[in-house]
Amino acid sequence: MWKKPTLLVDTKKAQRNIEKMNQKALNSNVFFRPHFKTHQSAEIGEFFKEQGIDKITVSSVSMARYFAGHGWNDITIAFPVNLREIDEINELAGKIRLNLLVDSAFSTAKLKEHLQNRTGIFIELDNGYHRSGLLPEHTDEADKIAEICERADSLEFKGFLTHAGNTYDARNRNEILSIMDETAQVMKNWKERYISRFPEIIISYGDTPSCSLADDLSKFDEIRPGNFVYYDLMQYQLGACTFDDIAVAVACPVVSVYPYRKELILYGGAVHLSEAYLTDKGSKIYGYIVQLTENGWSDPMPGAYVASPSQEHGIVRMETEDLDRIKPGDILGVLPVHSCLTANLMLHKISYL
Amino acid sequence: MWKKPTLLVDTKKAQRNIEKMNQKALNSNVFFRPHFKTHQSAEIGEFFKEQGIDKITVSSVSMARYFAGHGWNDITIAFPVNLREIDEINELAGKIRLNLLVDSAFSTAKLKEHLQNRTGIFIELDNGYHRSGLLPEHTDEADKIAEICERADSLEFKGFLTHAGNTYDARNRNEILSIMDETAQVMKNWKERYISRFPEIIISYGDTPSCSLADDLSKFDEIRPGNFVYYDLMQYQLGACTFDDIAVAVACPVVSVYPYRKELILYGGAVHLSEAYLTDKGSKIYGYIVQLTENGWSDPMPGAYVASPSQEHGIVRMETEDLDRIKPGDILGVLPVHSCLTANLMLHKISYL
Repeated sequence: MWKKPTLLVDTKKAQRNIEKMNQKALNSNVFFRPHFKTHQSAEIGEFFKEQGIDKITVSSVSMARYFAGHGWNDITIAFPVNLREIDEINELAGKIRLNLLVDSAFSTAKLKEHLQNRTGIFIELDNGYHRSGLLPEHTDEADKIAEICERADSLEFKGFLTHAGNTYDARNRNEILSIMDETAQVMKNWKERYISRFPEIIISYGDTPSCSLADDLSKFDEIRPGNFVYYDLMQYQLGACTFDDIAVAVACPVVSVYPYRKELILYGGAVHLSEAYLTDKGSKIYGYIVQLTENGWSDPMPGAYVASPSQEHGIVRMETEDLDRIKPGDILGVLPVHSCLTANLMLHKISYL
Repeated sequence: MWKKPTLLVDTKKAQRNIEKMNQKALNSNVFFRPHFKTHQSAEIGEFFKEQGIDKITVSSVSMARYFAGHGWNDITIAFPVNLREIDEINELAGKIRLNLLVDSAFSTAKLKEHLQNRTGIFIELDNGYHRSGLLPEHTDEADKIAEICERADSLEFKGFLTHAGNTYDARNRNEILSIMDETAQVMKNWKERYISRFPEIIISYGDTPSCSLADDLSKFDEIRPGNFVYYDLMQYQLGACTFDDIAVAVACPVVSVYPYRKELILYGGAVHLSEAYLTDKGSKIYGYIVQLTENGWSDPMPGAYVASPSQEHGIVRMETEDLDRIKPGDILGVLPVHSCLTANLMLHKISYL
């Protein structure tokens, strides 16, 4: 059926993943503003709309424009504001409710100077992940940002936002939940520092591992997980999902089979799967192999994985006798290691099951 | 000037790289059939046409269709034939001279059954890289393939082809040249085994490291390097190019600066640069940082590199005082580690300088 590498999306699983996270947000009484950078797809967006979700997160101005064009009118760009796109930001903020992210007085002052429409401003916090954001000791910088917002009609200070990306490096559930709890405490302190001056501010928290593993998210005002819509092997390894929750697989044609090497070659390489890998018993794994079924795919075939991708080739290691039954022209599925990157590569090669 | 991540192509450098490799092929009296998978660009293809090149290599049926649509009519798909695209192959072979790659009698027999137009067939050899192809001991399989070709009007046995991808793992020039010499000897043996039955067969050899480093390529009948058009940091590390030969850089807006961490954040992450890295003094390097100039870019800034990419963010480590002068809204360039992957990601975000 599939002639070349194709991202299969099991829409039932994706819908179930959305429903589960939405229910958890409702139970915890927090806003649910899912991150759309994983799927980047208007079609998948519709599944969120069907469940009553009307606020989203994206990671670029381009993505915000795309989703604004598909009827989304409350969008947070959870990425340090790109001042070079100020024209596009002004245009967007004239049409929809737009929130931006800053972590410096410098950028905030530039926004004050150039923003033409009222725009929400979140201060990004660094919870220890050390990508972007302010650390707890940076109260001076935050004070300056808050003051600039106070004096500018175009800037509405909305609160504090963080992405706890360090949960991805955690070794188990307890470590992930500890990161979440510590982050919640730090964010609460920030909120308390400013709440009297800005009574409407909220704290907004992201990341799929902790939002999946925690039962109660009521420590925050808003959650922004994204990856959960598809999940992937990284999340599986962290314990954040089961194999059955993974809603995407890349269908890849088999082009060569080498029983003497216990290997085969898929048409499906780094330009389809990405070069994301996980380590299992000392081996680099770029994807687990599944068998395609009428409406989806099997659990991973034991002892079978993508061992090395080059641009278009994927070398699959397959230790079992299954290999003897596989021929060029057959098709296998690959469960991706990092579905955000795979979905980005396969954006225009999708089949919704 | 650049608002978001943009692949800058220094066309003068690319043209110079093409000219140099073309001249080497002419001097060595070998066919030059450059691989177009690195640039995948009709515009860059024109530079090859201008230098008289009329035969190309690609790595998928899709790419063959794209370039056939841009006036290329002699194309080798240097990838184990994907039997699921037989309709597209038949259509292409009806229009242009098309060569396919096989490494099994199974696939060859399927081609015999389904091909409608005369098509060139190369047997792929595994030179020790162990991706795809036959090993020297697989003469039985090669005999079967040759026999199928002999009996089918649609199959023209063209010879032997290999990609010496193991040169990428070599530690120095001598190791790279040794791999090339050993591969040449093996290929010569294969050719001699069949030349009396198929007097027109050739041996076709690929890979940029050895084709760049060797002065004489006359051991082969045809060469198919591809990466050399742009080069990258991987090739630089192998000694196959200088910084000045690298013809692509990704222009990335600066969005946050952290002098206390000696780091800054670029709008430019894994979806722009890829996750390819090299290791230098124990650090993972996802790209070197250059300053953009009026018509190009500088040599790498000492002690500055992309240390960690996430989806859209690139964390840049910058040990020097240069950091104090850089502000959000500025722009920096990134020399890519693996230009094939970066160019693939940035295919629709290119600016030709």
